[in-house]
Amino acid sequence: MTKVTSHISISLDGFVAGPEQSPDNPLGIGGERLHEWAIATHEWQRQHGSGTGEASADSDVIAASVRNVGAYVMGRNMFGGGPGGWEESWRGWWGEEPPFHLPVFVLTHHERAPRQMRGDTTFHFVTGGVAEAERRAREAAGDRDVSVIGGATAIQQFLAAGRLDELQLHVVPVLLGAGERLLVNCGEPTLEPTEVVASPRVTHITYRVR
Amino acid sequence: MTKVTSHISISLDGFVAGPEQSPDNPLGIGGERLHEWAIATHEWQRQHGSGTGEASADSDVIAASVRNVGAYVMGRNMFGGGPGGWEESWRGWWGEEPPFHLPVFVLTHHERAPRQMRGDTTFHFVTGGVAEAERRAREAAGDRDVSVIGGATAIQQFLAAGRLDELQLHVVPVLLGAGERLLVNCGEPTLEPTEVVASPRVTHITYRVR
Repeated sequence: MTKVTSHISISLDGFVAGPEQSPDNPLGIGGERLHEWAIATHEWQRQHGSGTGEASADSDVIAASVRNVGAYVMGRNMFGGGPGGWEESWRGWWGEEPPFHLPVFVLTHHERAPRQMRGDTTFHFVTGGVAEAERRAREAAGDRDVSVIGGATAIQQFLAAGRLDELQLHVVPVLLGAGERLLVNCGEPTLEPTEVVASPRVTHITYRVR
Repeated sequence: MTKVTSHISISLDGFVAGPEQSPDNPLGIGGERLHEWAIATHEWQRQHGSGTGEASADSDVIAASVRNVGAYVMGRNMFGGGPGGWEESWRGWWGEEPPFHLPVFVLTHHERAPRQMRGDTTFHFVTGGVAEAERRAREAAGDRDVSVIGGATAIQQFLAAGRLDELQLHVVPVLLGAGERLLVNCGEPTLEPTEVVASPRVTHITYRVR
C-alpha cells in the first residue's frame, strides 16, 4: 500500500537548519553538522555518484529511505527559491541531473510547465497545496510510496493536514541553539515510534503518524 | 568509577514540562503525558510501594537508572519551592518517607540544617552551587554514581559547568508546543549516543557528555 513518508535530520534541540539561513547558506550557521553523518555513508556517496563512504547502519537507513519511493514532494525553497528563482529560465539548484530519478512535485504559488531533467527527474509544479500534491504524487507513485523531502514547512503542512503516514527523524547529537524548528505549526499529530536504529553518530526513530 | 548522570523525560519537541507551571501544577499543562510511560511500569510502581505495573523494556530502564546511584542532587524547586517553601518547618513535598533512600543534595541559596527523613533519605542543603554539590555528592556516593534528578535548571547548570558525564533522555512521542525546555542555557556540550533502548511508548537515548 502506498504511504506518505518523510525523513529529516534534526538536532537534539529540535532544529533542522541553523540560524541565518540565506540562498547562499540554506542550511544556516552550523546546519551542515546535521548532515555529516549522512555524507559519511556509502549509500549517500553512491546516490551522488561517488564510490566512497562507509557501509554502516546509517548507510542502510539511507538506502531503506529511498528503496520504495515512487514520487517525491518538496517545498518551493528546496526546489530553489531566492532572487530570480522563479524566472522561467531557472531550473532549480539541483543541476541538470538531479539525484531523484523520479517525478518530483513542487509546492508553489506559481503555475509553470513541468521541467524534465536528465536522469528521469521531472519537476511538476503544484499550486493546489498539499492536498493536490499528495493526490498527484500518489498517482505518479502507483503502488510505491510518496516521500516528502522537505523543507520543514512542507513537512509541517503535511503533518497539519493529516496527510503524513510516517515520519523518520535522524536525531543528531548536536545543539544548534537557534534556527528553523521542525515540530511547530504541525497540528496535534499522534505519533507512535515503530522502529529505532542506533549508531554512534545519530539515532534514527521512525514514527507512525495518526 | 563514580560518574555524574542524569535522566529525564522530554517531549519530542524538547519540553520537560508543559506551560503554566505552578506550585499546584509543577508539570505544567499536559506535562503529565511525559510520565505516563514510567508510571505504567512495574519498577516505578515498586519504587512507590505498589506491586502493580508492567514488566517491560521501559521498566528495566528505570531499574537500571537507580541501580548504581549513591547520592542524588536536585534543584530547590524540585525539593519543594513555592510560597512558604523555605519555612524551617517545611520538609519538602516528598512526604515523610521520600522515595530516594539516599543522601540528596539540594541546590539552594538558603543555609539550612540537614533534614533526616524516614527510609534513609537525608536532604542536605548546598549553597555553593554545582561545584560544591558535585563534590559533596561524590563524597557521599563513594564508589557509586551521583544522579542529578532535576529540574531542568539543575541539569542545565551541570551541563554548562561540564560536570555531567552522562545524560539519558526518555524521548516521549508527544508534542507539548510550549513549556520548559531542557536543552537551552547548557553551554556547548559534546554529546555521543552510547545506548538506545526502544519501546512502543518511548525512546531512551543515553549520551556520553564531554
